[in-house]
Amino acid sequence: EERKRGYPFIVWKDILRWFIIMLIGAITALIAFIIDICIEEFSNIKYKALKKFVDKYVLQDRLYIPYLLWVLSNICIVFIGSMLVAYVEPVAAGSGIPQVKCYLNGVKVPRVVRIKTLIVKAVGVITAVVGGLAGGKEGPMIHSGSVVAAGISQGKSTTFNKDFKIFQYFREDHEKRDFVSAGAAAGVSAAFGAPIGGVLFSLEEGTSFWNQALTWRTFFGTVVSTFTLNCLLSAYHGHPGELSYPGLLNLGRMDPFPFQFYELPVFMLFGAVGGALGALWNFINYKLAVFRIRYVSSPWLRVVEACLVAAASATCGFLMMFLLNDCRPLGEDPTRVPLQLYCADGEYNALAAIWFQTPEASVRSFLHDPIGSYKPWSISLFVVCYFLLSTWTFGLAVSSGLFIPNLLTGAAWGRLLAILIQYMLPSNTINPAKYALIGAAAQLGGVVRMTISLTVIIIETTGQISNALPIIITLVVAKWTGDFFNEGIYDIHIQLAAVPLLPWEPPPLAHNIYASEVMSHPVFTLRTVENVGHIVELLKLVSYNGFPVVDPPLADEGDVTTYKRLRGLILRSQLIVLLQNKIYNENANTTWSNYKVDSNMFRREYPRYPSIDELDISEWEKTCTVDLRPFMNPAPYTLPHRASLPRLFRLFRALGLRHLPIVNDVNEVVGMVTRKDIARYRVWRHRGHMGMEELILSSEI
Amino acid sequence: EERKRGYPFIVWKDILRWFIIMLIGAITALIAFIIDICIEEFSNIKYKALKKFVDKYVLQDRLYIPYLLWVLSNICIVFIGSMLVAYVEPVAAGSGIPQVKCYLNGVKVPRVVRIKTLIVKAVGVITAVVGGLAGGKEGPMIHSGSVVAAGISQGKSTTFNKDFKIFQYFREDHEKRDFVSAGAAAGVSAAFGAPIGGVLFSLEEGTSFWNQALTWRTFFGTVVSTFTLNCLLSAYHGHPGELSYPGLLNLGRMDPFPFQFYELPVFMLFGAVGGALGALWNFINYKLAVFRIRYVSSPWLRVVEACLVAAASATCGFLMMFLLNDCRPLGEDPTRVPLQLYCADGEYNALAAIWFQTPEASVRSFLHDPIGSYKPWSISLFVVCYFLLSTWTFGLAVSSGLFIPNLLTGAAWGRLLAILIQYMLPSNTINPAKYALIGAAAQLGGVVRMTISLTVIIIETTGQISNALPIIITLVVAKWTGDFFNEGIYDIHIQLAAVPLLPWEPPPLAHNIYASEVMSHPVFTLRTVENVGHIVELLKLVSYNGFPVVDPPLADEGDVTTYKRLRGLILRSQLIVLLQNKIYNENANTTWSNYKVDSNMFRREYPRYPSIDELDISEWEKTCTVDLRPFMNPAPYTLPHRASLPRLFRLFRALGLRHLPIVNDVNEVVGMVTRKDIARYRVWRHRGHMGMEELILSSEI
Repeated sequence: EERKRGYPFIVWKDILRWFIIMLIGAITALIAFIIDICIEEFSNIKYKALKKFVDKYVLQDRLYIPYLLWVLSNICIVFIGSMLVAYVEPVAAGSGIPQVKCYLNGVKVPRVVRIKTLIVKAVGVITAVVGGLAGGKEGPMIHSGSVVAAGISQGKSTTFNKDFKIFQYFREDHEKRDFVSAGAAAGVSAAFGAPIGGVLFSLEEGTSFWNQALTWRTFFGTVVSTFTLNCLLSAYHGHPGELSYPGLLNLGRMDPFPFQFYELPVFMLFGAVGGALGALWNFINYKLAVFRIRYVSSPWLRVVEACLVAAASATCGFLMMFLLNDCRPLGEDPTRVPLQLYCADGEYNALAAIWFQTPEASVRSFLHDPIGSYKPWSISLFVVCYFLLSTWTFGLAVSSGLFIPNLLTGAAWGRLLAILIQYMLPSNTINPAKYALIGAAAQLGGVVRMTISLTVIIIETTGQISNALPIIITLVVAKWTGDFFNEGIYDIHIQLAAVPLLPWEPPPLAHNIYASEVMSHPVFTLRTVENVGHIVELLKLVSYNGFPVVDPPLADEGDVTTYKRLRGLILRSQLIVLLQNKIYNENANTTWSNYKVDSNMFRREYPRYPSIDELDISEWEKTCTVDLRPFMNPAPYTLPHRASLPRLFRLFRALGLRHLPIVNDVNEVVGMVTRKDIARYRVWRHRGHMGMEELILSSEI
Repeated sequence: EERKRGYPFIVWKDILRWFIIMLIGAITALIAFIIDICIEEFSNIKYKALKKFVDKYVLQDRLYIPYLLWVLSNICIVFIGSMLVAYVEPVAAGSGIPQVKCYLNGVKVPRVVRIKTLIVKAVGVITAVVGGLAGGKEGPMIHSGSVVAAGISQGKSTTFNKDFKIFQYFREDHEKRDFVSAGAAAGVSAAFGAPIGGVLFSLEEGTSFWNQALTWRTFFGTVVSTFTLNCLLSAYHGHPGELSYPGLLNLGRMDPFPFQFYELPVFMLFGAVGGALGALWNFINYKLAVFRIRYVSSPWLRVVEACLVAAASATCGFLMMFLLNDCRPLGEDPTRVPLQLYCADGEYNALAAIWFQTPEASVRSFLHDPIGSYKPWSISLFVVCYFLLSTWTFGLAVSSGLFIPNLLTGAAWGRLLAILIQYMLPSNTINPAKYALIGAAAQLGGVVRMTISLTVIIIETTGQISNALPIIITLVVAKWTGDFFNEGIYDIHIQLAAVPLLPWEPPPLAHNIYASEVMSHPVFTLRTVENVGHIVELLKLVSYNGFPVVDPPLADEGDVTTYKRLRGLILRSQLIVLLQNKIYNENANTTWSNYKVDSNMFRREYPRYPSIDELDISEWEKTCTVDLRPFMNPAPYTLPHRASLPRLFRLFRALGLRHLPIVNDVNEVVGMVTRKDIARYRVWRHRGHMGMEELILSSEI
């Protein structure tokens, strides 16, 4: 097709790509805007109402009434979101980052980029945050951006069964993946107001291959996204044209903090603490996830668990407000819902202020409130509670992310350590904001183990480049410490889902594993001109997606043990489309001379081809034959059977292959290697040791 | 080897890698520090002395004396550097960025990472900047970092003929390239104080494959580099421990500038102007480079040209100071060498202040001086002069970069436009610093056409994240505008050098070009057990680097037209080492049973193997045979002859191959494809059109 239309067509496609990216950025920002506004408004209503009840009943000493109301409202709201996630679209649970990561790595996760998922996700995240769970809205934004990208770039939707007949040229895996990576970047950019961080995120977590043109477009998308969101939010908050709200997560403007040489060990200490706590968080979350897989598998149980956590969150908050009488004079800082509780007149309960707002606002409080705002004991208790709550929350059947809860926990213990340091070195005046920020970065870094993208995101969010060095040092130490114990939380969840994700590098010491050991055989092959009945049977029999096409054996070669010479590779989807359109040799008018129909024919069905059972093949048709030669890939990448595992690995990783025929010395197929066969070999490293293990991978994906 | 030593060895290698990276970062910073101090001190001496002469002779109206002194000093200083570059190490000319880019792309540029090159480069850049050329010290820093990385990671130096016998495990192409990319990043980081920008630079320009572990180490290296330089410079400037000098390029702290909605078109306009001017700059430089290749080829002519430019720079500066009497009151801003010239007492010549300092300090002046410091006419003239001077300078036989000159030109016209806007909209107060910075970014972006890394570098250098959006918009528009006319300056120079650099994506519309057309044939093959005489002859006859190893033809197959079955691939370097060590079948004690010697044997010679002519092969030896099987790569990547060009391209690009055997259906070698064969096909796009051309590539590399 390209050949026929020539270079102007390529230029035109290129312009179209830019246009699509712009749309993706703008729509992602719009969704972020809607989510943000809903959360803010609903939270406001909820906490204002609760405050009224508290103020009323505290005088009558019947505080259990507002408590019950709080629990009830949390449960109700979370119930809605949890029902949606559990029954309508389970893939919308959690932050969606592991799923997007898998998708970008080349693994097909079912339903991950459907519009239905997006809707469930959007509603789910609103209910989760408004319902008072220890979750954030940033992770889901990344997933939302990916869905938007997939939907727009394909110009059709399976959920609504609508085909807009636009952007048809981009209906293939490779193009779609590029757009999705740009969408994820736009999501990050909208969530954190971090256009550069967004690009880096999509590079670090997704596309491993730095293609200049693609990166360049991605960057454009993230800028459009930040900019649109900024305009919308500024207009909403009544300062149109001022562009002062770059992203959803607004940590408030940090002042640049000068730091001294001797503070470097302190930052390293923070990093080490963050890494250790992050590893602990991951460990607890891992154990919970294993427990969930084993015992909490039915949807209604998952809904019950989500409601339980919602109730527990409210209980924690209430108990802390009630038991710890941490009072603060009013008016020193902007608190939206100051609760008096048992404090004297003109004062309010500091902990109630932390609990009676969205987690994001709490992070801001910890970062910006003056030193001495909180008592050390209340912070310690808060850290423990919130640490446990957040690790319990991530993995529930609700849509919520882990960025904000971890930032909050980290900011809290950062502030605690600042108070401690102040206590030990009374001569210096400590800037609590600095240590709270460093703590937040350390905790988050210890959990997710991202490096450059996280650094840039934090820098962009706080708007201060001069804090870069302390943050970098902290994150590096946090990652080292954390990696000593276990892996990043996303990798843990991906491994739990048994997804064949390829790591970055081939496992070491694998030079003595050869392709002949890795490959699966016998291979199911097709002849260049194949009988329809045989194809149908084969497709029904096995679940493989790629089939080598071989020379037909000569009549006198009756020997079954000889393999046949490789001519090409054909995909299951191609075979199905061929059968569906009845491109048989016997149908004279559809011979491959009119090749033209073909390209559109394949595109129409993309990306969800019917399964073989849905096709209606008559008995007569089964005697027909199909000439596979015009459709197959005539020059697939191959490797000889004596190739070593690292060689196989590099080919799969670098080219994003899904299957690879293994041939012998005379180019006869002796086996097939799939992505799963490669991903099985995984390296573990803990506490300075390492080794290799073979994983059991899910057969569902 | 790895197999024998097991996993602890891998862990040990990993720790060693981190240690090497740390060394690279620290030593790069040290070199940057030395260069910076030398330039600053020498410039100070030079301009102070000149000022004395000017002050003295201006009263006597004999200004031609200081002028001649100026010209003379420039010529003398530049002469030294130019002689070094022209006669000692021509590869040290220019910024070195194109060469590093080629190296990282997998092309072996001779002598590019030798220590001799580093020394010439360091001395050269000092002379170039002190000599008053329109060049910067930032580009050469990047090259210096690469050389440091290559030297340290290999633990030996060819220039000094010394082998430290350390880090021997890293003596292979792949590891070395990884270290060099980290070194380039450390160089950027030292030059601009931009650790994140450094990582992005090495990704955008070099390593195309984002490997998390590598990026992570690179990041560590850039942080170490910035940090070390910061400590050294802080100590030198008398504030040890304050860490206020992050990089060589210090643009001064910018205030965050708020911007309004309506300013966006203004930024876009700046971007368009920068893109157009950048394209013009590139065009002129391209024409000059072509002229140089044709007419200025001998070393002494190149030295003369460099001296000529040095004289021209001084003349320009002097004429401008002399003719334009742009006076400014003293004391309003920090000028180190205020020249009174014909100004009234208490005033000084603003243009003299610009010319009588290093270009870097001039950028600072344009960014920070209050509005009205310069007359529009003087700025316009300065822009024209400096634009022409800088495009003339880049490509001379001196070591200097183009970052600073372009920043300076851009800052100057940015300020000019700011004055213009102020004139048209007298009601607003314009912040000249804002527009000067935007102009500087636009001009530099228009010339080099980098995107993300440049954005991050500028943001990190100015220390203000809140200026990100305007800078991004400007750079995007600048790149679009520039790409409309021609390519980035580095790509232009790489193309001029006829280096087989692979672009990012396969050329479109190349599906109908097949491997059989691209490949070179007949192929020179070796048999699995080969006669020494034949090997020697073959190596002397052709200059190929890879030879397919094939099955020996059976005795009765006398047909010369049949090709032979592929068994493996062996490199020229391996053959030479085999011959050198006389690993013949006839020497009983060196059969392949004692495989152990082999790995160290190859490593000892890396990376400069002797040529075949240097080997001393006796007549008797020529009758011996070598068994190539234990040494060859037994499972090379191959493609069938019917594979299309994009397929070939992807394999080369993704795996960084250098040669690829092309086989027929029965795995017999029919041709070889080298990187050059692929890189020949290049796409051009200008003014919305595009096409493909075949290049003629240099046979030297």
